[in-house]
Amino acid sequence: MSLGDAFHVFDTTLRDGAQREGVSYSVNDKLAVARLLDEIGVGFIEGGWPGAMPKDTEFFARARSELTLRNAELVAFGSTRRAGVRAAEDRQVLALRDAETPVVCLVAKSDIRHVERALRTTLEENLAMVSDTVAFLVAEGRRVFLDCEHFFDGYAADRDYGLRVLSAAFEAGADVGVLCDTNGGMLPMGLGRVVAEVASRTGFRLGIHCQDDTGCAVANTLAAVEAGVTHVQGTANGYGERAGNADTFSVIAGLVTKMGRSVVPDRCLPELVRVSHAIAELANIAPDTHQPYVGSSAFAHKAGLHASAIKVSAELYNHLDPAVVGNDMRILVTEMAGRASVELKGRELGIDLSAQPDAVGRVVSRVKELEADGWSFEAADASFELLLRAELDGARTAAFTLESYRVLVEHWGNGSVLSEATVKLYVDGERIIATGEGNGPVNALDQALRTALTRRYPALAAMELADYKVRILAGRAGTGAVTRVLIETTDGASAWTTVGVHENVIEASWHALVDALSYGLRRHSQL
Amino acid sequence: MSLGDAFHVFDTTLRDGAQREGVSYSVNDKLAVARLLDEIGVGFIEGGWPGAMPKDTEFFARARSELTLRNAELVAFGSTRRAGVRAAEDRQVLALRDAETPVVCLVAKSDIRHVERALRTTLEENLAMVSDTVAFLVAEGRRVFLDCEHFFDGYAADRDYGLRVLSAAFEAGADVGVLCDTNGGMLPMGLGRVVAEVASRTGFRLGIHCQDDTGCAVANTLAAVEAGVTHVQGTANGYGERAGNADTFSVIAGLVTKMGRSVVPDRCLPELVRVSHAIAELANIAPDTHQPYVGSSAFAHKAGLHASAIKVSAELYNHLDPAVVGNDMRILVTEMAGRASVELKGRELGIDLSAQPDAVGRVVSRVKELEADGWSFEAADASFELLLRAELDGARTAAFTLESYRVLVEHWGNGSVLSEATVKLYVDGERIIATGEGNGPVNALDQALRTALTRRYPALAAMELADYKVRILAGRAGTGAVTRVLIETTDGASAWTTVGVHENVIEASWHALVDALSYGLRRHSQL
Repeated sequence: MSLGDAFHVFDTTLRDGAQREGVSYSVNDKLAVARLLDEIGVGFIEGGWPGAMPKDTEFFARARSELTLRNAELVAFGSTRRAGVRAAEDRQVLALRDAETPVVCLVAKSDIRHVERALRTTLEENLAMVSDTVAFLVAEGRRVFLDCEHFFDGYAADRDYGLRVLSAAFEAGADVGVLCDTNGGMLPMGLGRVVAEVASRTGFRLGIHCQDDTGCAVANTLAAVEAGVTHVQGTANGYGERAGNADTFSVIAGLVTKMGRSVVPDRCLPELVRVSHAIAELANIAPDTHQPYVGSSAFAHKAGLHASAIKVSAELYNHLDPAVVGNDMRILVTEMAGRASVELKGRELGIDLSAQPDAVGRVVSRVKELEADGWSFEAADASFELLLRAELDGARTAAFTLESYRVLVEHWGNGSVLSEATVKLYVDGERIIATGEGNGPVNALDQALRTALTRRYPALAAMELADYKVRILAGRAGTGAVTRVLIETTDGASAWTTVGVHENVIEASWHALVDALSYGLRRHSQL
Repeated sequence: MSLGDAFHVFDTTLRDGAQREGVSYSVNDKLAVARLLDEIGVGFIEGGWPGAMPKDTEFFARARSELTLRNAELVAFGSTRRAGVRAAEDRQVLALRDAETPVVCLVAKSDIRHVERALRTTLEENLAMVSDTVAFLVAEGRRVFLDCEHFFDGYAADRDYGLRVLSAAFEAGADVGVLCDTNGGMLPMGLGRVVAEVASRTGFRLGIHCQDDTGCAVANTLAAVEAGVTHVQGTANGYGERAGNADTFSVIAGLVTKMGRSVVPDRCLPELVRVSHAIAELANIAPDTHQPYVGSSAFAHKAGLHASAIKVSAELYNHLDPAVVGNDMRILVTEMAGRASVELKGRELGIDLSAQPDAVGRVVSRVKELEADGWSFEAADASFELLLRAELDGARTAAFTLESYRVLVEHWGNGSVLSEATVKLYVDGERIIATGEGNGPVNALDQALRTALTRRYPALAAMELADYKVRILAGRAGTGAVTRVLIETTDGASAWTTVGVHENVIEASWHALVDALSYGLRRHSQL
């Protein structure tokens, strides 16, 4: 079900968002991101700049045959024609046409200083460039939106010129005039006043595009909606140049849950967390754990004070039911949390601790000791559960006894690099020696350990290492740096995370690896 | 020079900010953070909750003898007395007094649902708790601010009760009533309206405390100032529970540079970047490269379009001169940047490339190839400069020729872990074999390499590895994961960063290590 054209959520992750430092999408990545954005119900997906970026030209070509969107229309981005040529003869404008998208978003200068000093043309020629290019694309059957670059800075310098640019576009057939805070220097109060003024002076359909240079991109976008725009531009997770863009997810969640606007289909809102994390993976950026609405910490409570009260009534401590956006409320196990948090965490894991105050006390002190050494159980539920069960009932959590391991990495003269590991251990009294190779030292260690254990524990065959993270914790006063390793393991049906900490990255990995396999074996009742 | 009492910047990094998932400060850390916050000119530093957290009690005790602040006053945080006891008999209130800070910030319930369901007392007793505790501390000579927890949610449920809490506090001698958006669900427009209403109904001096659950904490804070508050609370880098708090740095920069308020001494503003990064180090959190104003990418331009125009006039493309907040404008070398960026980057490095179009072309294609394999030069200027010089003039950038290296990590039965590395290499035709030990494999490799090279290159003795970062880049369609290592090296006078990428973390580290030493030797004219 489409929500119609009354309100546009326009996502530009694939164009403006790709300007973020460190991001580089392949064409396959871009197709995957477009599919994900479609799943949260945005109305428009700006795919790139055909003609200017070869990868983007290829994206639009492949999108025609490979991309089926349920909610969104695809948008090609480009600039108005060059000065002094006809639109129909401008290669970049023709590439826009040839992208064959239903919608084109054109960028135009709307600040006289940029026209004169960066574009180096006359104010009149710039208006003609807008008018001609819009008219050409409308005649080709395209719907055209106009991004007015530097609109707010331009408005401060010369209020009328931006309005003339808007008029030129609308007279030529444009549908939306998007006011862009390109340099990102606006605050919501001032921005809202300009938007309201432009809306009342022109009566045009307006949109908003905000950068986050003052930390106000989301607020600016929402303030513009309150002031009358019906088209908002954002990027997944706020990715973008400099401080980034307005975060599409926070904008959608704010519009729906705080402003009561139905801007995406109802069924899409609970997809926000999944889509946010999946796009972070494709962009190869660690998800921001503290991102509003979708971060893994967005509804996580750490303070002991809060944890006690949350046992009474969760809704008093959350601005929103986390399930609405597909998130969970987590209780963190940390030095600040104390007993109430450990009990709640036990409840999350299905273990009733209320009758075992001594065990809770032992767990709390053990966690505090380990955290003082750099361990962190906040992201490593599986390691925490092993610790909890060991303290609770002295449960057997070790699959073997280690005698020793050895890891070797060799770089030879011909440039080839070899990694090899040997483990010596005892399983049920039997001494086992096994060697494994891998593409790196931890992979080799994992191979050796599995080789040694799989005969006794066949469930290991179904488990694999899904993710591996390394964090160097800076040394503090008098201590050396330590390395914290997080390992995510999956057996196909579920996934769990374990932690290891040591000054030596191999030993830290070993701890996390052993916890990972032990936890998996417990799940499969082999331990 | 103090700015007087007209406007308060109140930082709570050490109390509310310490609730961020993953953060744990030692007492030494807390003292260091307080000194840093003082350097940016905040008026108040909330140091913790004496009595509730042993570490915080110790912090205030040590602060009395060890902490000398130029700009800020120290604040102890605590809650109002418990129900049914006298303030003078409440241990937590006495601990607040005994912290001996000039200012105390008390938190009080101001939402009737929290009074009845979480605190489980009567509305009248809660008012008495506020009144008694404020009066007791004022009589002890303390200045008292009152944090009205859940003020905005409470105001929506019952407008009058929050005002009665404020009245109780002011009648007992409080100086500021801080309206807290504790659950963080507000947007700036609505929040500004409530603040303006409360200000006009009470005439009290008001403050604002915002959480970032809607992504609007900074905007909400600035909107509250526009609506009349003269006291703002924030945390360094926005650290805090869930999505965090209003970022003190963005709030200060927004107030000074966008709203024209003189809220910190003029000389302090250029310290923002340094202090932000230093506190991130102490909190052990990687600095957010895209943080407004202070992030290393906050003024970095990637788009080829922008890079060309920036050559004309930088001020058209920045919302602020980066130097105002102590930041730099950087031009990024990436696949999108193209020739203009490489030329500008060369200019940053003091190399004029305008006369060497072919070399620029070769550098651009080499960078594109390497970035496709996961390399990134955005953060590794030293590796980029080595690449540039090698392409430009075929300059000698290698200190030796490698025959082979071998790294060994062994974990023995007694639990001890050994790391050892051996390198075999040629320097000026001479074959050298050297072995090093370390607390981990990379450290051992570094030791072995230095042992082999220091006789020929004595400048190596002054260089040391200052930081080491590891990032696992997720595998894409058909390729395995690769590891990217960044190494920061210092010779005491300056620091430089190099990069290495390989599927094997040891080999990736080797690349970054070799670049690090080569770059250092070039600086010392030994290469």
